[in-house]
Amino acid sequence: MLKLKDISTELNSVELLARVERVIVSTGSNGSNYMIVHLADATGRVEARKWVVTDQDRELIKPNSYIYFKEIIPNEFRGILQLKIGDYEIWDEEKVAQKGFQNSDFFVVAPVNIEKQYANLMELLEKVSNPTFKALTIGLIKKYEKEFLIYPAAMTIHHNVTGGLFWHSYTLVKNCLAIRENYLYAAIDWDLLICGAILHDIGKIFELVDQTATDYSLEGKLLGHISIGNAELYKMAEELNIAKDESGKINSDLTLLQHMILASHGKKEYGSPTEPNIIEAVILSTFDNLDARIFKINDELTKVEQGSWTGRILSEDGKMYLKHYKK
Amino acid sequence: MLKLKDISTELNSVELLARVERVIVSTGSNGSNYMIVHLADATGRVEARKWVVTDQDRELIKPNSYIYFKEIIPNEFRGILQLKIGDYEIWDEEKVAQKGFQNSDFFVVAPVNIEKQYANLMELLEKVSNPTFKALTIGLIKKYEKEFLIYPAAMTIHHNVTGGLFWHSYTLVKNCLAIRENYLYAAIDWDLLICGAILHDIGKIFELVDQTATDYSLEGKLLGHISIGNAELYKMAEELNIAKDESGKINSDLTLLQHMILASHGKKEYGSPTEPNIIEAVILSTFDNLDARIFKINDELTKVEQGSWTGRILSEDGKMYLKHYKK
Amino acid sequence: MLKLKDISTELNSVELLARVERVIVSTGSNGSNYMIVHLADATGRVEARKWVVTDQDRELIKPNSYIYFKEIIPNEFRGILQLKIGDYEIWDEEKVAQKGFQNSDFFVVAPVNIEKQYANLMELLEKVSNPTFKALTIGLIKKYEKEFLIYPAAMTIHHNVTGGLFWHSYTLVKNCLAIRENYLYAAIDWDLLICGAILHDIGKIFELVDQTATDYSLEGKLLGHISIGNAELYKMAEELNIAKDESGKINSDLTLLQHMILASHGKKEYGSPTEPNIIEAVILSTFDNLDARIFKINDELTKVEQGSWTGRILSEDGKMYLKHYKK
Amino acid sequence: MLKLKDISTELNSVELLARVERVIVSTGSNGSNYMIVHLADATGRVEARKWVVTDQDRELIKPNSYIYFKEIIPNEFRGILQLKIGDYEIWDEEKVAQKGFQNSDFFVVAPVNIEKQYANLMELLEKVSNPTFKALTIGLIKKYEKEFLIYPAAMTIHHNVTGGLFWHSYTLVKNCLAIRENYLYAAIDWDLLICGAILHDIGKIFELVDQTATDYSLEGKLLGHISIGNAELYKMAEELNIAKDESGKINSDLTLLQHMILASHGKKEYGSPTEPNIIEAVILSTFDNLDARIFKINDELTKVEQGSWTGRILSEDGKMYLKHYKK
Amino acid sequence: MLKLKDISTELNSVELLARVERVIVSTGSNGSNYMIVHLADATGRVEARKWVVTDQDRELIKPNSYIYFKEIIPNEFRGILQLKIGDYEIWDEEKVAQKGFQNSDFFVVAPVNIEKQYANLMELLEKVSNPTFKALTIGLIKKYEKEFLIYPAAMTIHHNVTGGLFWHSYTLVKNCLAIRENYLYAAIDWDLLICGAILHDIGKIFELVDQTATDYSLEGKLLGHISIGNAELYKMAEELNIAKDESGKINSDLTLLQHMILASHGKKEYGSPTEPNIIEAVILSTFDNLDARIFKINDELTKVEQGSWTGRILSEDGKMYLKHYKK
Amino acid sequence: MLKLKDISTELNSVELLARVERVIVSTGSNGSNYMIVHLADATGRVEARKWVVTDQDRELIKPNSYIYFKEIIPNEFRGILQLKIGDYEIWDEEKVAQKGFQNSDFFVVAPVNIEKQYANLMELLEKVSNPTFKALTIGLIKKYEKEFLIYPAAMTIHHNVTGGLFWHSYTLVKNCLAIRENYLYAAIDWDLLICGAILHDIGKIFELVDQTATDYSLEGKLLGHISIGNAELYKMAEELNIAKDESGKINSDLTLLQHMILASHGKKEYGSPTEPNIIEAVILSTFDNLDARIFKINDELTKVEQGSWTGRILSEDGKMYLKHYKK
Repeated sequence: MLKLKDISTELNSVELLARVERVIVSTGSNGSNYMIVHLADATGRVEARKWVVTDQDRELIKPNSYIYFKEIIPNEFRGILQLKIGDYEIWDEEKVAQKGFQNSDFFVVAPVNIEKQYANLMELLEKVSNPTFKALTIGLIKKYEKEFLIYPAAMTIHHNVTGGLFWHSYTLVKNCLAIRENYLYAAIDWDLLICGAILHDIGKIFELVDQTATDYSLEGKLLGHISIGNAELYKMAEELNIAKDESGKINSDLTLLQHMILASHGKKEYGSPTEPNIIEAVILSTFDNLDARIFKINDELTKVEQGSWTGRILSEDGKMYLKHYKK
Repeated sequence: MLKLKDISTELNSVELLARVERVIVSTGSNGSNYMIVHLADATGRVEARKWVVTDQDRELIKPNSYIYFKEIIPNEFRGILQLKIGDYEIWDEEKVAQKGFQNSDFFVVAPVNIEKQYANLMELLEKVSNPTFKALTIGLIKKYEKEFLIYPAAMTIHHNVTGGLFWHSYTLVKNCLAIRENYLYAAIDWDLLICGAILHDIGKIFELVDQTATDYSLEGKLLGHISIGNAELYKMAEELNIAKDESGKINSDLTLLQHMILASHGKKEYGSPTEPNIIEAVILSTFDNLDARIFKINDELTKVEQGSWTGRILSEDGKMYLKHYKK
Repeated sequence: MLKLKDISTELNSVELLARVERVIVSTGSNGSNYMIVHLADATGRVEARKWVVTDQDRELIKPNSYIYFKEIIPNEFRGILQLKIGDYEIWDEEKVAQKGFQNSDFFVVAPVNIEKQYANLMELLEKVSNPTFKALTIGLIKKYEKEFLIYPAAMTIHHNVTGGLFWHSYTLVKNCLAIRENYLYAAIDWDLLICGAILHDIGKIFELVDQTATDYSLEGKLLGHISIGNAELYKMAEELNIAKDESGKINSDLTLLQHMILASHGKKEYGSPTEPNIIEAVILSTFDNLDARIFKINDELTKVEQGSWTGRILSEDGKMYLKHYKK
Repeated sequence: MLKLKDISTELNSVELLARVERVIVSTGSNGSNYMIVHLADATGRVEARKWVVTDQDRELIKPNSYIYFKEIIPNEFRGILQLKIGDYEIWDEEKVAQKGFQNSDFFVVAPVNIEKQYANLMELLEKVSNPTFKALTIGLIKKYEKEFLIYPAAMTIHHNVTGGLFWHSYTLVKNCLAIRENYLYAAIDWDLLICGAILHDIGKIFELVDQTATDYSLEGKLLGHISIGNAELYKMAEELNIAKDESGKINSDLTLLQHMILASHGKKEYGSPTEPNIIEAVILSTFDNLDARIFKINDELTKVEQGSWTGRILSEDGKMYLKHYKK
Repeated sequence: MLKLKDISTELNSVELLARVERVIVSTGSNGSNYMIVHLADATGRVEARKWVVTDQDRELIKPNSYIYFKEIIPNEFRGILQLKIGDYEIWDEEKVAQKGFQNSDFFVVAPVNIEKQYANLMELLEKVSNPTFKALTIGLIKKYEKEFLIYPAAMTIHHNVTGGLFWHSYTLVKNCLAIRENYLYAAIDWDLLICGAILHDIGKIFELVDQTATDYSLEGKLLGHISIGNAELYKMAEELNIAKDESGKINSDLTLLQHMILASHGKKEYGSPTEPNIIEAVILSTFDNLDARIFKINDELTKVEQGSWTGRILSEDGKMYLKHYKK
Repeated sequence: MLKLKDISTELNSVELLARVERVIVSTGSNGSNYMIVHLADATGRVEARKWVVTDQDRELIKPNSYIYFKEIIPNEFRGILQLKIGDYEIWDEEKVAQKGFQNSDFFVVAPVNIEKQYANLMELLEKVSNPTFKALTIGLIKKYEKEFLIYPAAMTIHHNVTGGLFWHSYTLVKNCLAIRENYLYAAIDWDLLICGAILHDIGKIFELVDQTATDYSLEGKLLGHISIGNAELYKMAEELNIAKDESGKINSDLTLLQHMILASHGKKEYGSPTEPNIIEAVILSTFDNLDARIFKINDELTKVEQGSWTGRILSEDGKMYLKHYKK
C-alpha cells in the first residue's frame, strides 16, 4: 500500500489507508454537497474530495477514523495534489492492527529526537539558578510531561505534528541560547528567558481538544492558551507554596514568569493582554513569531516547485512566497 | 479650616489641611524643578504647585502624607483652580487625630450607600440559580470582601474614589437588570451576566498597590487586572472543588465566567486577550465602557462652567466635551 | 398550507405560499446560473435556491411577489434549512386574497405592541420640559407617523421586521430611562437624550426604498439616514419657526438635537460626520450599537442548536458566537 | 508705523498697530501666566508674547481688538520671528479711524481679484445646462453672497484670509476645468463637478463664528460645515420647490449635488458621512485636499529660509517639508 | 468576423478571432476544472469560460496565443457579457497574417496620438531650465524610448492598454501644467514637477514581463517599479557623469528627482519608501492617484447601464460606483 | 579631568572636556532661550543645559566642537544626570592635542574587536558559494570598507557608536549562523541570508552626513538608506558586469539580494517598499528589528536603577521597560 508522500498525479489510481484529520462538508453551486477530507499518515498530508455525499458518508467519515481506498484517483488543483474519493471502507482500530499497522503510522511526527532533547532540556533546567523560575518550570513541565511531549503546537497554523509543542518550545530555548554570546553586553536574565520560552505555550495542552488536535476545546475558544497557561502557572506557585514571599507579598519572580507567558504574542492585537515590559519578553515574543513563520512558510514552500510561488498564506497577511532555493 | 470644595480664586489665601495623593517633580524650562502635588480631602481634589523644590520637600511631600498650610494662595490655570504652595507643615497621623480629624476626612467617597447596596447585591446573588456561577461569585466576593468594598476602580481614569470598585461593579449589575425587560426576546443568561458584571474587575484589588491607589503594583503593571482576576477565579474553582465536572472535564460554567472577565474590555487592542464570543460578554463590555465614560466625562464637566468645554480628555481620544446642561 | 417556521428537513416535500423578499442571481462554477430567493411570511424567513434559471424565472420571481409551491423540498446547508425550488406559481394579490390570506400574513412583525407603546411614548414626550426638544420631536414623529410605526430599521443588519424602526428607537428610549436612576449624580439632560433616541434613525424612512425594505433608495445610498435625518430636523425647525432665537442666532437646542443624530454612530469611521461632544450623545450611540448587536447576535443564535456556534457575523467583524444558553 | 511684513530681528524696537486675531493664556513652568497673542494686519501675521499677565491684560487684549505698541521688540524663536510685548495701548475703532486706518488695513486678503473672478464664476454658472444644478447653485450662492465672498476658509488650517472661502472654492472650479480636456474619454458630468466644487464648503459660513474667524460657532463645533451645507442645500431646494419631481419622488439631481458636499472630505475618517460613490465626487475630494495642502505647505515654506525645513505640520501628519526652491 | 466590441447577448453564436491575454484554471465545486480565458482585440476585452478542460487545452490556450472560434456563444453573468468556449483552433502568427490580420489588431491602444504628444513632450523637456533635471529626464526617456511609448501602465489596475504608460505619465504632465496658473503664488518648481511626472513610472518597463503585460517579472515582484526606477535614474546620472557635483558631494538635483519617484505613491503603506517632503511630490502623488482612479472607475462604469452600479472595485476599497451620467 | 561616566550628582562641581554631539536651542515659557547640549566622550554621553543663551553661545557651541568646563555642576532630572553649563571654553583640535587628547577620546566605540571580527567576516564571505552573492557583497564591502567599519548605525535610535554599523550588521550575521542548526529542515539559502544581513544597511554610509552622525544628509532625508543601498548594489553589479546573465536577462541572484535590502524593514509602514517574499528576508528583517530593540531597551535600562522603569521609549511605541535584573 502506498504512503501519502509517494502519491503523485502520474499514478492513475492507488490503494491507500490513511487517517482522517478533518472533514468539511460544503455545498457547491449546483446545489449538491461535497466533502473536503484531510488525510494524514506518518509521511504527510493530502487533501481529498468526495463529490457526492450521502448521509452515510457523513456518519462514517469522521476525524480520527481510518479510511481505506482500494482505488483512489490522484488529481491536481492549482498545482497541488488532490485525491478524488470514490468507494471507501472505514476500518476500526482492530482491523488496522490486524493489517499490521499501528497508531504511529498515521501521525506526522516532529523531525527531532524528543527523548534526547527532553533530557537536554531537563539538564538545562537543573542549572537554572533562580529558585522560583526553576521550581515553577520543572514543576509545570513535569506535571504535564506526557502531553507536553506529544501535543502539536496548533491545529493548522504551525508545528501541527506530533511533538510539535515540545519541538517549537525547545527550539525557542535553543535559539535564545544560540544568540546569547552576541548579547553579553546587555542586562538580560537568561534564566528567565529560557524558562519563559519553554513554558510560554503550555496552555495549548488545554486549548486543543486532545493530542490529535482535531479541534479546539471550549476553554481554548473562550479563554485561549495564554490565559490558561497564566492561570496554570499561578496554580503551580500555590501548589509549591511560593506564590508569596515571607512578608506576604506576591513573589515578584512568579510575576515576571507570568509576564513572559502573557506577553508572548508581543502585541495586544495578537492576543497578548499585556505587551512586553521587560527585555526578555521582547526576545521571547520575537522568536515565538519567527519560529512559527519559518515553519509555516517552509511548509508552503514544500508544496510547490522551485521557481514557483506559494498560494496566499493567511497567517502572512495573504502574502505569497517565492521558492527560489532547494535544499 | 476650609474644605477643598470651598476654595475659590475669590479667596486671597486660605488655611488648609489635606492628604497628598500624588506627587510629580518636573523641571521647568528655566532649569529649576517644580512640584505638582495632588491634594485630596473628603470633599474633593485640587492640584497644587510648589515652584521651588528642595531636597527636603522631596522627602517630606509624599503620597498619603498629611500636609498643612497656614496660608496657601488659590490661583487659576486655564479656568481651573490651582494652589500655590509656600510654607507648609507635614503632620503625622497622631497630630491629625489630635486636631480632631480622622482618616475618612481625607478620602473622596463613592456617593452610594455601600453597606445597603452590598446587602442588596448579596440578596441578588443568593437567587442565582446556576450553582457554579453562584458559588464562584459569592466565594470570590466573600474572600476579598473588605478590599472589594473599599478599593477605588482606578488611580485616575474612572471611579477613583473610596468604594469606587464596588460602585462601578454594582452599577453594571443594576444597569443589566434595568434593561432586562427590554430584551426578554433574546437568549441571554442573566445570571451569567450579573455574576460576570460583579466579578469583572476583581483583579483590581491586586492591580492597585493598596486602597489609597497611589500607584499600580508590580503585578498590576506586568499582568493587569484581567489576567489576575481570571487566575483568581480559576483558583477559587479549585478551592471549591468545582473546576472539573464528574467526568474530569473542565466545568464549562467556570469557563463561561472566566470568559466574562477576559472579554470585559471588548477588544484585544484594549487589553482583552479574547473578544466576546457570547452575547452576555457583549453586554458586559458595553456597560463597562459606558459607565467609565460617563464617570470620566461628568467628572471633567464638573470642573468647567456651563457653556464651556472641558479640556482634552485622554481616555476620550483627546476629545473635548461641551457642558451645555446643569443639573 | 405550512408556515415557514414549521418547515424542517424531516419533511420530504411541503406545500408553501410565501412572499419573495430578495432575489440574487448567481453563476455557478459549472457555468450555469442559479437563483437565491429569500422567502418570508409572518412566521419567519427561509432561503430557497433554484438551480436552473430561465428568462421567465427572472421575470416572474421578483421582490414582493407571492410565490406558491405545490411541492418544495426542504434541504440543509451547513446546518441551516434551505429549500430547493422546482415548479412554482406566481400569485397576484387578488388570488392571494381569494385564498384567504392578507398582506400581513407575509411580513415578520416586531414582537411588541406598537400601538400601546406608541401611546406611552407620546405621553412621555408630552412631559418633555424643553420646548424646542418637545416641539421638534413631536413635530417630526407626527409628520412621518405612519412610516415611523411600520418601517423596519434596516434591510438585513438589525430589526429588519415590520415596525422594527419604532421598536429599535423606542427600546433606546426605554433603556435610557431604565439606567437613569443609576446616573443621577451626572449632568445628563434626559429630555435631550430621550428626544435624540427617538429621532436618531428617522432618516431611515427615506433611506429605505419603501416599508418592505427590498432595497435602499438612491438618497439612502448617496446621503445616508444620518444626513437625511439631520436635514429633516432642520427643515422641521424652519416649519415650526424655531430655527433661530429672537436675536437671529441659531437656536442652540436645535443644534444639540441635530448633534444627537449626527453623532449617533459614535465614530467617524462608522459614518458619523461628527463624534459625540456631549455626554448624552455618548449614551445614545452606545445604546444604538448595543441594541443592534443584541438583535443581530440573537438572530444568528436562533438559527443554530444549543452548544453550537453561529456562522461568521459580518457586522461583528466576522466573529462567531456560542449558543451556550437556551431561554 | 511699520507693517508686519517689514519687521525683522534686525530692528531693535518698532512702533506697531495691529489687530489681535487670537489670544491664548498659558502658564509657564515657573508658575506665572503668559499670553500668546496672534497679531495681524493686511501685510501678514506675527506671533507676540506677553510674559507677565495681569487681570487687566486679560480684559483688554481680546480677539479683534486693535493693539498699539510704541515700542515692541522683535525676537526669534526656532528661526521664526516673535514679538515681545511690553507696554501697549488698546485703540477703539474711532481712534483707529482717526489715525487714518480703516478696517481693511488689518486683514490679510486673498491674492485674487474677487470681484472679477466672481463675475467669471457667475458667467460660468449661467451656462450650466442641468436646471437643478444651476438653480440650486446660483440660489445658494446668491442667498449668502456677501458672506461667501468675504469669509475665510478656516481659522488656521488653510486659506485663512479674507475671501479665502471664495478663493479656495473657485480654485477648485478652475482646476476641474483645467484638466477637463485630459479626461474627455471619461463619463464625467462637468456641470455637477463645477457646481459641487463651488458649493462644497458653503456651510463654513455657519461653521465660523463670523468673518473674522476668531472661533468656530456652536453649530460649527457640533454639526460641522458638511452637515450644515447639506441641510442648507436641501432647504434651498424646498424654497425653489424642486426638492421633488412631479411624481413626488425626491429629485435625483438634488441628491447628486448633496452627495458632492457630503463626500467632499473623501473618507469617513476625515468627516465625510458618505464616501464618494460617483466619479465627480472623487475628483472634487481630491482637489479639495490638494488645494488645502498646497496652501498650507506653501504657507509654512514662506516662513523659513531656502535650504531649510519647515517645522512639523500637524495637518501633514507632523511631517516637515524642505524649502529647496524659491520663486 | 466580429470584433469584440460588437458582440452582444442578442447574438446566438458568433465567429471570432482574438488574442488570449490571461488564462486562469479554476476548479468548480463539482470537482472538475474550468478555464477563465481573457480575450482581447483592438476593440476591447471580453471574458470567456471553458467548462471542460483537457490537458490539451492547458497546453494550447496560453497568453498571447491567437484563438479562433467558428462558433462561440455569448452569455451574461451579473449583467456583464461572457463567452462560452466550445470548439476552438489555435492559430500561429503566420496563419493570422495569412488571414489578413496584423499584430496591432489584437491590442487595445491608448486613445491618444502618441507620436504627436511625444513630440510635444520633447519640446517641453527641451525648455526645462534646470540642467540636471533636463539631462536626466531626456536621457532616461531616450534610453528606453521604445518601451516607454508602447508599454501599458499595469496588468489590470489602470491604463492597461498599449501606450498606457506614456498616456498616464504624459497626462500627469498636462494636468500639472493645467493647474499651474492657479498656483503662481506658491513656491513650486514646475520643472521638477514635470520631469518627476514623466519619469515616475519608468521602472514599469522592468516591472512588467514584456509589453503585452501578461505577468509581472521577477524584478517587478521582488523590487517593484519604484525601486527599479530610482536605481535606473541613479545609474543614468552616473552615465551622464552628473551624480556628484564638483566638490564630490551628491548632486542635490539628482536627489530631488529621485525623491519624486520614491514618494510618488504618497504613503509608505502604498509602497513609497519615503513620503513626500517637498511640495512637488505632494502634487505628483495626488495626480498619480487621481489619474489611475479616474481610469479605473470609468472603465468599470463603461461596463454597466446608466442608472446602475458597478461591481465592487478592489482598488477602491471594494466600493461600488453609480453610473448616473452618460457622455 | 573627569570622564563622563565618572560624573555623579554627588560631586558638587567637576572639570570636564567633552565633544558636543548635538545642540538644540529651545525657548522656555518665560520667553528666554535655553540650550540643550549633548556631550560625549569615549566613556559615554551626558546631557547638559545652558539656561541663558547669547548670540556668542550659538556661534561657539556647535556639533563636533570641543567644550571645556573648569567647573560644571551635576544635576538630576527625573532621576537622570544633567549638567548645568555656566562658563565654558571652546578648544580647537590643536589645543585638544596639546593637552594630550586624541580624537578617539571623544567618541563612544562599539564594544567589539572590529578588526578581528572583520577578518572573521571576510573569511566567511570567501566561503560563500553563490558567485553573484559573493562578488556583490565583497565588492560593496570593500568599496566602502573604511566607512563601513567606522560609521554608527544611526544618530540616536540604535548602535549610535563608532563602528556601530559594522557591529549591528555583523551581529545579524552571527545570529543567523547561530540558529542555523535549528532550521536545517527548512529550505533556507544561508548564503543569501548572510550576504543580505551584512549589506542591508550599507546605504547608511550615505544617509548620515558623516561618521560623527551629527545629522542626516539630504539624500538620507529624501531617499533613505534602503533606496540608497539598493541603487548602490545595482551599480556594483554593473561595475562587476554581472547585472545581466548571458541571455540579457537580469541576474536573478542580484534581484534576490536587492530584495533582501528592500524588505529589511519588514513592513511597508516601516519604510520597506516591498515586504518579504522569500523566507530569508523574513529572518533578516526579524533579526534587524530584534537587534535594534535590544540595543535601545538595554541602553535605556542602563540609565535607571534596578527596580525602576525607564522613561517612555519612542521607538517602542512609548512603552516603558522595567529594570528587574542586573548583570
